[in-house]
Amino acid sequence: MNGAEALMQTAVAAGVDLCLANPGTTEMPLVAALDSVRGVRAVLGVFEGVCTGAADGYARMTGRPALTLLHLGPGFANGIANLHNARRARTPIVNLIGDHTTWHLGADAPLTSDIESLARPVSGWVHTSASAKSLPGDLAAAVGASFGPPGRVASLIVPQDCQWDASPGPAPVPSRTGWAAPDETAVAAAAEALGGDAPAALLLGGRALDERGLRAAARIAAATSCRVLHETFPARLERGGDLPSFDRLPYFPEQAIEALSSLEHLVLAGARDPVSFFGYRDVPSRLAPERAPVLELAAAADDAPLALEALAERLGAAVAVPAPARERIAAPSGALSAGSLGQAIAALQPEGAIVMDEAATSGLAYAAFAAAAPRHTTLSLTGGAIGQGLPCAVGAALACPDRKVIAFQADGSGLYTVQSLWTMAREGLDIVTVICANRAYRILQVELARAGIAEPGRQALGLTDLSHPTIDWTALARGFGVPGQRVESAEAFAEAFERAMAEPGPCLIEAILSA
Amino acid sequence: MNGAEALMQTAVAAGVDLCLANPGTTEMPLVAALDSVRGVRAVLGVFEGVCTGAADGYARMTGRPALTLLHLGPGFANGIANLHNARRARTPIVNLIGDHTTWHLGADAPLTSDIESLARPVSGWVHTSASAKSLPGDLAAAVGASFGPPGRVASLIVPQDCQWDASPGPAPVPSRTGWAAPDETAVAAAAEALGGDAPAALLLGGRALDERGLRAAARIAAATSCRVLHETFPARLERGGDLPSFDRLPYFPEQAIEALSSLEHLVLAGARDPVSFFGYRDVPSRLAPERAPVLELAAAADDAPLALEALAERLGAAVAVPAPARERIAAPSGALSAGSLGQAIAALQPEGAIVMDEAATSGLAYAAFAAAAPRHTTLSLTGGAIGQGLPCAVGAALACPDRKVIAFQADGSGLYTVQSLWTMAREGLDIVTVICANRAYRILQVELARAGIAEPGRQALGLTDLSHPTIDWTALARGFGVPGQRVESAEAFAEAFERAMAEPGPCLIEAILSA
Repeated sequence: MNGAEALMQTAVAAGVDLCLANPGTTEMPLVAALDSVRGVRAVLGVFEGVCTGAADGYARMTGRPALTLLHLGPGFANGIANLHNARRARTPIVNLIGDHTTWHLGADAPLTSDIESLARPVSGWVHTSASAKSLPGDLAAAVGASFGPPGRVASLIVPQDCQWDASPGPAPVPSRTGWAAPDETAVAAAAEALGGDAPAALLLGGRALDERGLRAAARIAAATSCRVLHETFPARLERGGDLPSFDRLPYFPEQAIEALSSLEHLVLAGARDPVSFFGYRDVPSRLAPERAPVLELAAAADDAPLALEALAERLGAAVAVPAPARERIAAPSGALSAGSLGQAIAALQPEGAIVMDEAATSGLAYAAFAAAAPRHTTLSLTGGAIGQGLPCAVGAALACPDRKVIAFQADGSGLYTVQSLWTMAREGLDIVTVICANRAYRILQVELARAGIAEPGRQALGLTDLSHPTIDWTALARGFGVPGQRVESAEAFAEAFERAMAEPGPCLIEAILSA
Repeated sequence: MNGAEALMQTAVAAGVDLCLANPGTTEMPLVAALDSVRGVRAVLGVFEGVCTGAADGYARMTGRPALTLLHLGPGFANGIANLHNARRARTPIVNLIGDHTTWHLGADAPLTSDIESLARPVSGWVHTSASAKSLPGDLAAAVGASFGPPGRVASLIVPQDCQWDASPGPAPVPSRTGWAAPDETAVAAAAEALGGDAPAALLLGGRALDERGLRAAARIAAATSCRVLHETFPARLERGGDLPSFDRLPYFPEQAIEALSSLEHLVLAGARDPVSFFGYRDVPSRLAPERAPVLELAAAADDAPLALEALAERLGAAVAVPAPARERIAAPSGALSAGSLGQAIAALQPEGAIVMDEAATSGLAYAAFAAAAPRHTTLSLTGGAIGQGLPCAVGAALACPDRKVIAFQADGSGLYTVQSLWTMAREGLDIVTVICANRAYRILQVELARAGIAEPGRQALGLTDLSHPTIDWTALARGFGVPGQRVESAEAFAEAFERAMAEPGPCLIEAILSA
């Protein structure tokens, strides 16, 4: 048995069953081990950002890390943007990054680079293996580190001789650390803050947005006069059906500051003390009022749903709150705008869908409608590094083959990792990609105005415009093996989307949005 | 005047006239300065790897750095792979990387990351600006660092408040350091080694592969019995017409070791002491025989063509050598293979073409034919980070609008930065992209065999195969606004290629290669 095989056996024993790969020469023994050891499915991405984003989507849905298999520093670098998003989502991922044989590193061959320096900014754990003997133990440690809690990105750099040299065999898999139990002092303090008369809010994030957390938060809301909000870009949010729904903290800092302005207390459950996405002139970084003390009911490593249930108990809240009464949304007609597009998706999405929302400015209407849709899961762009949507949808579909995945995708952002479409086709994934074609980096046009640039010049306008030439997304889809169609009215979209919901397998709908 | 404008004025004064941009919110003042200050052309890439690879191609052709404009750590990360190639090519590039306002960094907002850690592995110079006042001087220093010599990647991180705060104005541009004059001791030692009876070779690289360097090397070869070779992946190589042509050092180490095995002396002119691309079992890293001492006639910062001329003088070589007699190659017919494809391109390329060769295994035949083509410039993949070809072609076309650019491109590698096609269309660049569609990562199939994996398993095969589904490159081209056609015979290719040579503007030919 060589080091690569011992590594792969250890991975299987640790419950890892998927490897998202774009390997090269230095990873060949690991590639071979994907066959000689059974239990890890290999899926090829034709660009590394597909692999890392898919690993993120997979783990958001399963709670378990996938492996990525990437080629030295430059191959890893192509995956960094989506690892940045995964880091912000606290997603467990184990990157396997091949490197030159240990004795060849000093030769400074063309592909040599400082991989650790590249890996550290996105990884909670980084290690370079020293030998085939230590390799399986390194993998076990990487898996352990990735689980946390909270989840994190673990990057294991594997010189090629550590893969091919003989190994004594797999390493034992250490037992996992559980999520931390609620802190009674924090529960008591949160109860006092939220149960009093002073204006108070409960901000939910991370694991607090699962079904248990949401239902406990609804009990708390019903038993107190506190406001409940959720973070702006949750890694995973359960929504729709009979689930309670809470307001999302607005994106723009002025609106978020306004939303929080009356607070005397802010209780955090799995969320961070909220800060502005960017630093704007004369706008503070922290969004809550200075006077409002922050009480952390559940930190990132804590069992946030359990903490919320403990808080509900302490507040004497009723065990269950009635489900919100909602009418199913009607499918819209007329012009295809961000509004009618979002309405149509919310109206027609099936029970149990997974919606990867990287629709950016085109997604705001949908977010408002979706609470009335059937029960579903929403994944958001957590770290602002655009190009997460299509890969993350790939990972979600690999994790949940029985659920329809909707990749709700801004056009500009979708281009960054457009190669994801090929993996959707190869693996026959049940993903409907909806491209919101406004043919602009619309958010940048907004930001130019916010920066006081009222009349941008020709070059500035050119840098925010995608209309010259227009991008033909149906041709791109076809190029990668995915059937696509273009629609220009709400009715045509609804018809295409309804058909896509009924048929399995990948397809793409390019929705041409009117301004 | 704000910091961004003072920076841009300094850039113009330093001779910078191009900015390859994919900006975001934190770069808005720099975007506005591209209009308020005249002299820097802005070109949008819809993926950052397009921008960095284009900056590489531009500077390889002009000798001057372009700016890139990239959005924080994740945006920069998407450009790292091609910066890795630029670093290996010793290309001058100045990256402008926006960051959060200085006072917002501590908030650890979603897009915050350690940009310096990401930048260092690919940059010869990294700096984070502290204020609008220091910003123009920082830019001047970055341009100076990028020029070297040798050229290098300079990365300037620019917090947004440094862009928008008031600035006293542009900074003075420091004078440039010249390439170092030949070292007479080194010239004498090289003359002794190459002029003697013992087997000796002269290995050319870097700037030694310009016209002057090549002609001087031909004089040296004619006056001695030494062998002349050039490095395997030159950043830029002048070829064809009446230029002397030398053998390329083979890629696989066993062949390179064989090629150098008889040597008693190895003289380097702008090249590094050659090492294996990867570390293979039982193959040494260094390719020259241990007994052969290495003599460095010209190091990276030296004026290699001048050193070669000095060496030719010292050897008493004739002032000029007759041009090699070559017959123009005939266009092939029959099956379309890597061989007939390479022959057709060499036969039909026009005078003055720029050939960006990232054809990988499909490019070997062309490299052998091209010496007999009309005078042209070849750019190679210098750092092994695939996805350089299409972006580098973009940069070369921006640098040399009067020359036809041929992007000779492997299909697997081309997918990494396929978004380049859009910039070709938007800017109307005179680039003919030839896709070598063997529908595989062929080099990995070779490397699997070299690693002793004689019968790869199903998963290993799947990770090297691009035929399921096949990629329709003509559809991808059309999706990005570039006309494309598919050809399946040598005649059809020749006809399409000849027409493409005659018509200006971007187009793509997908050459379906038989095995």
